[in-house]
Amino acid sequence: MRANLRFVWEGEEEAGSPHLEQILNANRELIHGDVWLVCDGPVDQSGQQTVVFGARGDAHLEITVYGPHHGLHSGHYGNWAPNPAMMLAQLLAGMKDEDGRVLVPHFYDGIEPLSAVEKEALAHAPANDRMLMDAFWLGHVDGAGAHLLELINQPSLNINGLSSGQTGARAANVIPPTATADLDLRLVVGIDWREQQQRVIDYIRTRGYFVVDREPTQQILLEHPRVALVLRDEASYNAVRTPMDLPIAQEVIAAVKSARGDVVLLPTMGGSVPLGAMERAGQTHTITVPIANYDDNQHAANENLRLQNLWDGVGTMAALLEMK
Amino acid sequence: MRANLRFVWEGEEEAGSPHLEQILNANRELIHGDVWLVCDGPVDQSGQQTVVFGARGDAHLEITVYGPHHGLHSGHYGNWAPNPAMMLAQLLAGMKDEDGRVLVPHFYDGIEPLSAVEKEALAHAPANDRMLMDAFWLGHVDGAGAHLLELINQPSLNINGLSSGQTGARAANVIPPTATADLDLRLVVGIDWREQQQRVIDYIRTRGYFVVDREPTQQILLEHPRVALVLRDEASYNAVRTPMDLPIAQEVIAAVKSARGDVVLLPTMGGSVPLGAMERAGQTHTITVPIANYDDNQHAANENLRLQNLWDGVGTMAALLEMK
Repeated sequence: MRANLRFVWEGEEEAGSPHLEQILNANRELIHGDVWLVCDGPVDQSGQQTVVFGARGDAHLEITVYGPHHGLHSGHYGNWAPNPAMMLAQLLAGMKDEDGRVLVPHFYDGIEPLSAVEKEALAHAPANDRMLMDAFWLGHVDGAGAHLLELINQPSLNINGLSSGQTGARAANVIPPTATADLDLRLVVGIDWREQQQRVIDYIRTRGYFVVDREPTQQILLEHPRVALVLRDEASYNAVRTPMDLPIAQEVIAAVKSARGDVVLLPTMGGSVPLGAMERAGQTHTITVPIANYDDNQHAANENLRLQNLWDGVGTMAALLEMK
Repeated sequence: MRANLRFVWEGEEEAGSPHLEQILNANRELIHGDVWLVCDGPVDQSGQQTVVFGARGDAHLEITVYGPHHGLHSGHYGNWAPNPAMMLAQLLAGMKDEDGRVLVPHFYDGIEPLSAVEKEALAHAPANDRMLMDAFWLGHVDGAGAHLLELINQPSLNINGLSSGQTGARAANVIPPTATADLDLRLVVGIDWREQQQRVIDYIRTRGYFVVDREPTQQILLEHPRVALVLRDEASYNAVRTPMDLPIAQEVIAAVKSARGDVVLLPTMGGSVPLGAMERAGQTHTITVPIANYDDNQHAANENLRLQNLWDGVGTMAALLEMK
């Protein structure tokens, strides 16, 4: 054992890691090293041990569109006062086709293609699609026939939430004053998060919206047929991918294999981790050796860790500590 | 004064009057009469006293579409697992064009046209559109240039509420399991509420959805690419319109004019009142003499009544009590 080990614990990752890079930059000499091993994220859905060489970037936008200044009776003003929920539905609907392909112009521009080694790794990875459809009760999936592992190597546009007025028992006959959607944009290497946000904003403009970045005044609303408030989340970051054929990468793969047998190699995880901040501050490469089970309900109710994954993780980490 | 007066107080109108007709039918002999005067709804937005000869009918639908069985991490499964918020946006977006005209097939079929007297009354009614746009901070309105008063004589489709996942500070990177919209369908004479609900359901089917009327099972979700749960609200009713040239209508108009001077005559109010149940059970005609101000924030926060409207209403009702 010739390695010096340092541990970094990040408690704000689910909040977009707003302070991580600042703290890392203030401690560059502490975190510089040959490799930064990350334990976040799940192993492959097949349950096989996985080594992952990157993460998708992540950017957010919150879009609010405006109807009447206050809720209006839908009988007295329906057909006349614009309904912001319908405006938002029409705006969002144009962002994707029925197969889930994003229609925002330039959305896929600049993607750095996978290398031959990365493509080969993907070709050898398990195809879990059918098993996952059954597990998630899905009668269809997006992607026009592409596999999940191919699709997470593409940028994505996801609606995290929609809200306007009330639904269910609290629904009332009102034309709501606003409608809001929160979007999550996942990024791949070659696409900058600010540019990807801008592409969506540019698209909103082409749909006839006057885009503002703060609550619009009465004057702005009266002067423009359609107004959208778009909030950019600055706690966003780019994708990172470490080449699989680096010597240090080969050493990590060998160490994990020594403990767990055959492993799945993935160019990127589906999730986003601020690997870029780590690589820039530590002047190092990141490699992710995940522990959690895929069905851990991450970011949702009943989040969990299977005990076998914990024991597997202990073995995997021990092997990494013994890397020569 | 030769009239017998009877008063009926309905406390469930905002809940769709689910028991009104049953109670009226059990008391037919008590409520039969020459005319049923209704005081619900607002006077014209100009503030002028108004006599209204009908009400739009009202029907509701709640639509829920399905993504994954539980919330999924949008990084791991975004681009692959279908997002129900996007599915709902695409479904709703196709229901109207950019001018607000409903695109659901047959939505406008069967409308009973306005009579010459009704058209003339509309032509003489105040055009409040510009004033209302300013009051409501609206930079555009639906209807391709038609006036508000024309548009409320057309059936409407309004989104009362949208919900999926979370927005704002509670938004998370999740593909939500479901997305729900509550729709309010206003009706005019000639269109039956069950048929109008069915037209929307038929449209949902043409968009590739398997429509169910209760929570779908795992098997149903796996067997159909797209599943929509559509709940029909049975507390719905049809529109009613009393001819303005009936002798009793002329008497009511004359009585109101005697107290308030010139009056605005409208074939229908924008709101919906279960006039049909009253007319069927009482074997009578309904005429509405509203009291409230238009800007009473009906069905919304800060609902109110201007005191002048109350005093005006006292005078109007006194004149009606003195009808010969």
